[in-house]
Amino acid sequence: MHQLVLLRHGESQWNRENLFTGWTDVDISERGREECLAAGRNLKEKGMMFDLAFTSVLKRAIRTLWLLLDEMDLMWIPVRNDWRLNERHYGALQGLNKAETAEKYGADQVKLWRRSYDVRPPLLEESDPRHPRFDPRYRDLRPEQLPAGECLRDTVERFLPCWEERIVPELRRGKRTLIVAHGNSLRALVKHLDRISDQEIIELEIPTGTPLVYELDEELRPLRHYYVK
Amino acid sequence: MHQLVLLRHGESQWNRENLFTGWTDVDISERGREECLAAGRNLKEKGMMFDLAFTSVLKRAIRTLWLLLDEMDLMWIPVRNDWRLNERHYGALQGLNKAETAEKYGADQVKLWRRSYDVRPPLLEESDPRHPRFDPRYRDLRPEQLPAGECLRDTVERFLPCWEERIVPELRRGKRTLIVAHGNSLRALVKHLDRISDQEIIELEIPTGTPLVYELDEELRPLRHYYVK
Repeated sequence: MHQLVLLRHGESQWNRENLFTGWTDVDISERGREECLAAGRNLKEKGMMFDLAFTSVLKRAIRTLWLLLDEMDLMWIPVRNDWRLNERHYGALQGLNKAETAEKYGADQVKLWRRSYDVRPPLLEESDPRHPRFDPRYRDLRPEQLPAGECLRDTVERFLPCWEERIVPELRRGKRTLIVAHGNSLRALVKHLDRISDQEIIELEIPTGTPLVYELDEELRPLRHYYVK
Repeated sequence: MHQLVLLRHGESQWNRENLFTGWTDVDISERGREECLAAGRNLKEKGMMFDLAFTSVLKRAIRTLWLLLDEMDLMWIPVRNDWRLNERHYGALQGLNKAETAEKYGADQVKLWRRSYDVRPPLLEESDPRHPRFDPRYRDLRPEQLPAGECLRDTVERFLPCWEERIVPELRRGKRTLIVAHGNSLRALVKHLDRISDQEIIELEIPTGTPLVYELDEELRPLRHYYVK
């Protein structure tokens, strides 16, 4: 049996302020910190152990991982960062208030952006300083790899190669693996593992700061999953 | 030109209490934290940038790195942990007070252990709970790789393969590299870079929490080095 634990980062500053975040590198809130510490304590109490961890290149996920590892006395395990674990890129909506956006574009349009599988948000202009091509953490990527705005399908499609190339081989080696990521990159993984349809995955909410344990068989098919609270 | 920055972890709890530390996994002190934050601020002000970082598997080095990366807004760079960057293993002296040890064994004997290149401290028994074979972070190592007590020569000898195998290839690729480690693993590196003799290296003190920048030529020979304060 293989063990995989998923964790969505603790509440961020912009979750609190109801802003579209995407790839904006905001930190977690004080409440987010407490969620992370509680997650670490709960996993430790259950006797959970990890051999390695994956996370995105965004601060709110990395901070969550650091707080958790510190609490579990596992600061020394290998950590691999991958941009493909990042949150869905929210394009030109990033930094906008969700309520204001609804006023501007209409509630139905905003619902479509937030709750459809394949409708992209308005894209960032190439010249927009928020475009990832200006961020040094993405400078080794080819221009066509860099999103200017993603629908959930895009996020799924860029996440899956990371899963196959980097994470699956470690699970097959028997590594007890932790993935700390974001609402939509974790949706992408849960969709793949549990074979959830395009429409149903949209409705699935993964709570922040709450470890989700998957037990997988030899073929990495889920046997069961449960939250640790 | 290649850029390499060395950093000894911030002051630890046991530095303060004047105990032999070695591989004991003690955390940094409040003063140590402040040193790390100052180091990060100073490097950032100088416009320093890193592409990747190496550190040991000991908390005081990892914590130092985390604080520095946070301060420099570089939490996303790849971090590689390697046990061969650990502090010199201080054998059965670990956890003992330096003054008490001098009373027990005599000041001359303690000086020999602390200040000779190739005299080992009393070794840990195989059954001693402090022996690294009981620590999960070393479980993938072969028994003969695990020290029960090291002289500085031993530390140099286990550090050099890590340098050659993992760090040199990254420097040759042009990666601006940060190494956060310990007094003696950094002595091992400085000895190698600057071709310092066995006796002289013992006298070299690398201060805690103060970045030491090396500029290296094509062949990784030092052109100059300086502290950032």
